[in-house]
Amino acid sequence: MLRRKIDRETGPLGAAEETSQLYRVLARANQIAGTTELDELLREMLDLIITVCGANTGTMYLFDKETNELVFSVVRSGEADSSLIGQRISADRGVVGETIRSKLAIVVEDLANDPRWYGPVGEGDEQLKNAITFPLLLRGEPIGAVQVFNYTHTPLQLMQFLGNRMTSEFEKASLLKKSEEHSQRLQVLIGLIAQISTTLDRDQILSLIIEKARGLLNAEASSLFLLDEENEQLVLHLTRDVNKTSLPPLRIPADIGIIGHVVKTGEVVRVKDVSKDPRHYKGIDEISGVTTESLLAVPLKIPNVVLGRERGTAEGHLIGGVESINKIDGYFDENDSQLLSTLAEQAATVLHIAQLYTDADELFLNTIKALVAAIDAKDPYTEGHSQRVSDFSVAVAEQLNLSPEVRHRIRIGALLHDIGKIGISDSILTKPDHLSTEEYDEVKKHPAIGAQIIKEVRLLQDELPALSQHHERMDGNGYPNGIKGDQISSIARIVAVADVFDAVTSDRPYRDAMDINTALQILREEAGDHLDSQYVDAFIDAFKKGKIMPQKQKPG
Amino acid sequence: MLRRKIDRETGPLGAAEETSQLYRVLARANQIAGTTELDELLREMLDLIITVCGANTGTMYLFDKETNELVFSVVRSGEADSSLIGQRISADRGVVGETIRSKLAIVVEDLANDPRWYGPVGEGDEQLKNAITFPLLLRGEPIGAVQVFNYTHTPLQLMQFLGNRMTSEFEKASLLKKSEEHSQRLQVLIGLIAQISTTLDRDQILSLIIEKARGLLNAEASSLFLLDEENEQLVLHLTRDVNKTSLPPLRIPADIGIIGHVVKTGEVVRVKDVSKDPRHYKGIDEISGVTTESLLAVPLKIPNVVLGRERGTAEGHLIGGVESINKIDGYFDENDSQLLSTLAEQAATVLHIAQLYTDADELFLNTIKALVAAIDAKDPYTEGHSQRVSDFSVAVAEQLNLSPEVRHRIRIGALLHDIGKIGISDSILTKPDHLSTEEYDEVKKHPAIGAQIIKEVRLLQDELPALSQHHERMDGNGYPNGIKGDQISSIARIVAVADVFDAVTSDRPYRDAMDINTALQILREEAGDHLDSQYVDAFIDAFKKGKIMPQKQKPG
Repeated sequence: MLRRKIDRETGPLGAAEETSQLYRVLARANQIAGTTELDELLREMLDLIITVCGANTGTMYLFDKETNELVFSVVRSGEADSSLIGQRISADRGVVGETIRSKLAIVVEDLANDPRWYGPVGEGDEQLKNAITFPLLLRGEPIGAVQVFNYTHTPLQLMQFLGNRMTSEFEKASLLKKSEEHSQRLQVLIGLIAQISTTLDRDQILSLIIEKARGLLNAEASSLFLLDEENEQLVLHLTRDVNKTSLPPLRIPADIGIIGHVVKTGEVVRVKDVSKDPRHYKGIDEISGVTTESLLAVPLKIPNVVLGRERGTAEGHLIGGVESINKIDGYFDENDSQLLSTLAEQAATVLHIAQLYTDADELFLNTIKALVAAIDAKDPYTEGHSQRVSDFSVAVAEQLNLSPEVRHRIRIGALLHDIGKIGISDSILTKPDHLSTEEYDEVKKHPAIGAQIIKEVRLLQDELPALSQHHERMDGNGYPNGIKGDQISSIARIVAVADVFDAVTSDRPYRDAMDINTALQILREEAGDHLDSQYVDAFIDAFKKGKIMPQKQKPG
Repeated sequence: MLRRKIDRETGPLGAAEETSQLYRVLARANQIAGTTELDELLREMLDLIITVCGANTGTMYLFDKETNELVFSVVRSGEADSSLIGQRISADRGVVGETIRSKLAIVVEDLANDPRWYGPVGEGDEQLKNAITFPLLLRGEPIGAVQVFNYTHTPLQLMQFLGNRMTSEFEKASLLKKSEEHSQRLQVLIGLIAQISTTLDRDQILSLIIEKARGLLNAEASSLFLLDEENEQLVLHLTRDVNKTSLPPLRIPADIGIIGHVVKTGEVVRVKDVSKDPRHYKGIDEISGVTTESLLAVPLKIPNVVLGRERGTAEGHLIGGVESINKIDGYFDENDSQLLSTLAEQAATVLHIAQLYTDADELFLNTIKALVAAIDAKDPYTEGHSQRVSDFSVAVAEQLNLSPEVRHRIRIGALLHDIGKIGISDSILTKPDHLSTEEYDEVKKHPAIGAQIIKEVRLLQDELPALSQHHERMDGNGYPNGIKGDQISSIARIVAVADVFDAVTSDRPYRDAMDINTALQILREEAGDHLDSQYVDAFIDAFKKGKIMPQKQKPG
């Protein structure tokens, strides 16, 4: 017990002793005020107040102006202190209610016979005989009250001073706590923004937003809705409850529910109890199994993004909304709204930029696929050739566990490997008979022509050897430069294997496509002198795993 | 004056009066403690202390443990209060020094004859006769001292109580102020991150980082260095002083200066006075005209970025550093380091993503330029045709003030407009004579073939009409579909003008290129029935402004 009781038996003190007693109380009050922990501060201040009037029990209430209720905030008695904590009583009646209304201290000398007292008076050691009650005033307004029982003397001035001190310290400690919590949450938010910013993968961004929104707001669950404008629907992309299970995408009409309102108006909506909100749509609760009580919903709005390089601005617009459901400890407040709005805004920006990047990337890949396919299609015998060589080469890269970056480079290089055919006369390319030596010499120019076409493209330098070297041979007897072994870039050696396989498994004007076993046998025979053995092996392994789909599958 | 002086003429007070006096002082202390403004709090507490001992002048010092100095923090006298504020005296000597060392109050009854007093004693109303000096102790350690002059009585207990209260309130107000400032700066930081995230324009990102770093840290200037690994140099991309003038890029060897150290090691460096730091490189100061005193330098490090779509991860690495120079009010502290580091990290991420986007965009544009050029080059007479039609079309779009997005779509559509030539036999395309009707019918298939090639590319749908409709005519007599007027997409109508102009200003097997005036005359004649008049007009206007560079410029 921190309570230091003044000995009640000594009777009235002399003036000097009284003064020295007073300074001990004041020093103690200063000491308590040094505590940074709010609960401890209130408890010790109440103990000091109990001590100065020789009481043995006391309570501190906080006043909830909104509901006109008093909340038991600190209870000091011989018995379990904490059982009453958080309980609420009406401020309409009772002694405490009166002290709140009158803003004056009230001394009740005989509780049992006071009409204002409606609590139990107890018996034995627990008996409550008398009470001093006084308000805690902050700038003249009551924020709570202190009530002590079984006092032996009534130093009201000192008690009120300590009460005021308690109020002042409570306010400061609350402000500091709130400010520090706010800083901490902002720090967390900044960390989340950093995390979300380091991925351009849309699904990963969506998961991160939902998961992090839940944690940041200390909510039971979070969900994210993306607007499908064409179908006038909201797509619930994911929701995670505390067990982190995810739900399959679900669609609701775009004008339904609180989220529908948010996405339509761009407003932030905060609801303490959705069962009282007519906009609430129960459909999602039924599927998610989470019964929504409190809710915070913010719009997902992408800002304008400056594209740079004279490309202007990608216009911002509302793309959906984010919901946090069931604040675990209390209700969502203004701070929560701001944090979630900020997170949502930044997340929307990241989503947008990821989309811009993905679009640019997809545009490149699909355009070259289309152009290469058109070039191949000039000769019906080579239709789809470049795409297949690309697929086969990527399968080899996967078989060898090459990194995604390298795999992608191989995908692009292989797609472009025959682009030099643009420069070869189509009368030669599509000639139904065997070629003359002169014609064949003409065809053999295509690697160099391809490299010539692409060589000015700064960002295709790694892919260039797939074009220029895919007809080189390991023994140096290939073309155009007769380089050999490691002099040939690995991307070209991989493409060469895929290229030979596709050639022998495709029909030609002068022969039918070979069966698979013969084709694989040819690869094995060509390994070493012509093709790189390691890539032939990887190709055959990939084939065995079903990763290679030749144009014509003929039984062997 | 907030000072409420106790009347010194009334003599000793009775005990009851003394108590009531005391409670008035205590109530006043509580009242003062309600002030949230730190300076006001200290001033009013000092006034209260001056009042209780009947003094007329007083000073509060804060103790700088690091330098063993006392800083004048509050001065209350009849004269200008503020002239001493911020001045420092040694704590080695004097009465205040002694009170700091001994942690005890010192009463000097005759200043003029006390060997510890080394200040002036003044004369007349300003004369300093006696002094009470006591330490301000926080958890037993001196954080400062209070000294009052010309006291009439010595209520030391009360004064020490008020001193302790002052210390405690000072600590709390400082903590709260610090915490709130921290929150505020984090809010600002979040706003800056949001701002930097909404541009993919590299130069704009760099400017924003530098400008915002300066503001966030309240520094005189900021600069950003990007590592040029190939040349082992650091490129000072921009620096802005308070007047917001920018400097041209400057290069320094990568291992020079504090910034060189930061970029090499990834460490954060904070220096109070660079003149004492041997790593400091004066070269930049000489050019920028800003003499560096205090400095904070943090690395620019991009994190790993997940690319998504099976593209793996773009690896993070150090790309440079950011410096803030000359903190305007004091020195850079740990908070500054963290804020600038966070800003730099997020900025590096944004720079990286902007680069990824720009690369993907550039890759697409340059690859199709290369492929289209190769297709055009099959016929020497059409070499460079698509690029010129693209340039001319963009010039028309600019002349019409179309948005950058639309301009870009026109650029791409025009580049691709003849891509269907891939599907036309090159014997026809390169035929030196006039074509037969059958051959011409074959050539007329190229718009449909082009559209067929590109139609599967989702992100080129807006550009598609440039391919499929550029040979339609306003009067409906064009091909392939004979649509007319507004049925023809505006992108195709613009490309048609550019296409006709380039055709007539280029040599053909059967005729030489026409001179410019003839060509413009043809455009004017074709306006209406064939070409859209508004685009012909815009073309001619653009030509007059020198925005159209025909292949052959012949005098008319």
